[in-house]
Amino acid sequence: MIEPFRIGIAGLGTVGVGVVKILTKNKDIIAQRAGREIEIVAVSARNKDVERGIDVSAYQWVDDAANISTIDGLDAVTELIGGSKGIAADVVRTSLGNKRHIVTANKALLAHHGLELATTAEQNGVSLMYEAAVAGGIPIIKAMREGFAANNFSAVYGILNGTCNYILTKMQHTGLGFTEVLQEAQDLGYAEADPTFDIEGIDAAHKLCLLTSLAFGVKPDFDALKITGISHINATDIKYAEEFGYRIKLLGIARRIDDKVLQVMEPCLVPSSSPMGKIDDVYNAVYAHGDFVQTSLLIGKGAGEGPTASAVVADIIDLARGANTPTFGVPIDQLKDAKWIDIGETISRYYLRLMVTDQPGVIASVAAILRDNDISIEGMVQSGRDPGQIVPVVLTSHEARHANVQKAAQAIEQLDVCSEKPCVMRIEEL
Amino acid sequence: MIEPFRIGIAGLGTVGVGVVKILTKNKDIIAQRAGREIEIVAVSARNKDVERGIDVSAYQWVDDAANISTIDGLDAVTELIGGSKGIAADVVRTSLGNKRHIVTANKALLAHHGLELATTAEQNGVSLMYEAAVAGGIPIIKAMREGFAANNFSAVYGILNGTCNYILTKMQHTGLGFTEVLQEAQDLGYAEADPTFDIEGIDAAHKLCLLTSLAFGVKPDFDALKITGISHINATDIKYAEEFGYRIKLLGIARRIDDKVLQVMEPCLVPSSSPMGKIDDVYNAVYAHGDFVQTSLLIGKGAGEGPTASAVVADIIDLARGANTPTFGVPIDQLKDAKWIDIGETISRYYLRLMVTDQPGVIASVAAILRDNDISIEGMVQSGRDPGQIVPVVLTSHEARHANVQKAAQAIEQLDVCSEKPCVMRIEEL
Repeated sequence: MIEPFRIGIAGLGTVGVGVVKILTKNKDIIAQRAGREIEIVAVSARNKDVERGIDVSAYQWVDDAANISTIDGLDAVTELIGGSKGIAADVVRTSLGNKRHIVTANKALLAHHGLELATTAEQNGVSLMYEAAVAGGIPIIKAMREGFAANNFSAVYGILNGTCNYILTKMQHTGLGFTEVLQEAQDLGYAEADPTFDIEGIDAAHKLCLLTSLAFGVKPDFDALKITGISHINATDIKYAEEFGYRIKLLGIARRIDDKVLQVMEPCLVPSSSPMGKIDDVYNAVYAHGDFVQTSLLIGKGAGEGPTASAVVADIIDLARGANTPTFGVPIDQLKDAKWIDIGETISRYYLRLMVTDQPGVIASVAAILRDNDISIEGMVQSGRDPGQIVPVVLTSHEARHANVQKAAQAIEQLDVCSEKPCVMRIEEL
Repeated sequence: MIEPFRIGIAGLGTVGVGVVKILTKNKDIIAQRAGREIEIVAVSARNKDVERGIDVSAYQWVDDAANISTIDGLDAVTELIGGSKGIAADVVRTSLGNKRHIVTANKALLAHHGLELATTAEQNGVSLMYEAAVAGGIPIIKAMREGFAANNFSAVYGILNGTCNYILTKMQHTGLGFTEVLQEAQDLGYAEADPTFDIEGIDAAHKLCLLTSLAFGVKPDFDALKITGISHINATDIKYAEEFGYRIKLLGIARRIDDKVLQVMEPCLVPSSSPMGKIDDVYNAVYAHGDFVQTSLLIGKGAGEGPTASAVVADIIDLARGANTPTFGVPIDQLKDAKWIDIGETISRYYLRLMVTDQPGVIASVAAILRDNDISIEGMVQSGRDPGQIVPVVLTSHEARHANVQKAAQAIEQLDVCSEKPCVMRIEEL
């Protein structure tokens, strides 16, 4: 009989509790699949005396999570505290240093300190596993590191934040504005009290940063990422996008062009009829393009106790089976510094929504600015007439340089008739 | 420096050639990911002197594939010959006996002899890998064995044959009949000269049989599978299904109900608006339902040189990294004999298309038979009137017992006014 695989769990929030539930409920089937029992030896959380709906009395309680890895005989530590600094970082650093494998759902930590932590893991001969950090219901880390490992990737992109996708879907279905739908999402528990990380695209960008590294064998570099959130999108944008045959989705895109990599997180217009255009509510979806596998699309729930904890336990089972995959798919000394593409140089079609005073000559002024920036108008809609009032004018462009579009948007914003910053979004024909 | 991982390739058809191409083109990146070089040592095929578009002169040529595993120093043999008997089976049996890992794309072999071969693999301490056997562009074997390994599955189902899905999609888009579209698919190379294995659902059933085993920890049992193909579906069925809001898809379904398992391969009506209803052309899709991950959907190309060879090479990389996952997810002695659900006892809504003489009293006779079998009619369409001629009558039922529906269909077939066997399909609200 093989010894049990012994773990300590640091963090007993939603996901930590989910992990305990899975390892209890599916104990026998997991032992069969792992080839040995998974034994929870110790747990740690801020407060011992909280009602969590699970019984943790059989596990050794550790007051300071940073010490959990010092417990004798532990094989792995599961870090489910979260955050890129502080206690979560301490737990991971000390555990790796103590030669314990780490299983984490912490995308922020990996996006900011992934290279350092992966190096520590490699030096100590242990694994740093993070399937749960990106789209819990989709085994995308495993797919990128293993399932598609035969391929030279040309792109990976996806809908990586369930909260944003829920908000955009609700706006689509109800015609309501961003603020009202956000409030509703908060009431339902789909958005946090402080929703900044979600709605500003930061959470999704953390995930994209890891996918970029896996796809292209480059060092994860969160600071190189251009991030735009969804809080400036309004009901008008959703409505016009639909009229043009598109849906607005917060898309993380990593694409290789020659030997350079584009890495960007921003709301885009995608065709309503495309698979990506149909991913609704809290679902996540990730596309991978490889030179042999061609196109593969994986869809599942991105968050929540069940899917995220399922991904954590999958990593634990892998470790119990003896798997040892390099953190970012290749050994650290073979990870390259990416040559990032200057986003200003990229070419796309664009959507622009302007809020302008309805008066003679406005369209002429806007058209002149676009012409002066080499932007050719494909379509334009001004809904109704309301002389002297602020009205939306929506334009789509033919292919144009990103930097030119930004310059034009700034020039339009300077016009006296323009009442707010234009809303500019890339049109992605997936 | 770690020794190269040495392989022999038995079979140089489309997939075998694809494997050589990948291991040549992506040699460096694969070595980085695998942690060592993958070296093709030997190859074998029926005929040495065939132009294959690749240079095999650097590899040892083996005339009799069954001997390839006797070559010194081989770590794994890749069996890409195909077929459930003969030389393919010999290659796999002798290789496992000689303690070589096996990587295969051979679903027929595994569906019929999987238990025996997995036992041989386990006894010899080697792995039997078959990601390429089921939906090459989708890492579904890995997802079921590893990515979702924390879950107790309730169902796995999917579109598992690209040829059938191509034919059904073309029938949908063109309004043409099965025979014409099959001919076109053959001309384009999407269907084989003898298409029986594809269109009668046998190829897809081989794959389902493996997914069932992985999902429920049961011995693969191809003979327990109820299989219906798509050759009896005509343009009328496609048209009426669409009118009712459905698409016809050849669906493999494995579902757990209490401690029993339903395993069936048959064309079904699925909602046009459901993700499964939108999987078109040669794409495959697999849904997995687990108690924690909930619903995950994976979509990709099911066949073709690139995707299938990509899956073969992924397995080779896994082996080179030292992975050793049990063939059917758990050790052989823990695989259960499935208790199969009697399909006659299952309850579903049904679609029935009858070809009957247009004359008074026909509907009354049909309705009486349905009533006598406890089948309640939900909707009925008879298109146009053509007294004395054969016309289609299409019905949908409320929930009914499968055995009753079969009995009713047989009784209807006995009616003098009925000109052919009724077309009966399950309606699956996914």
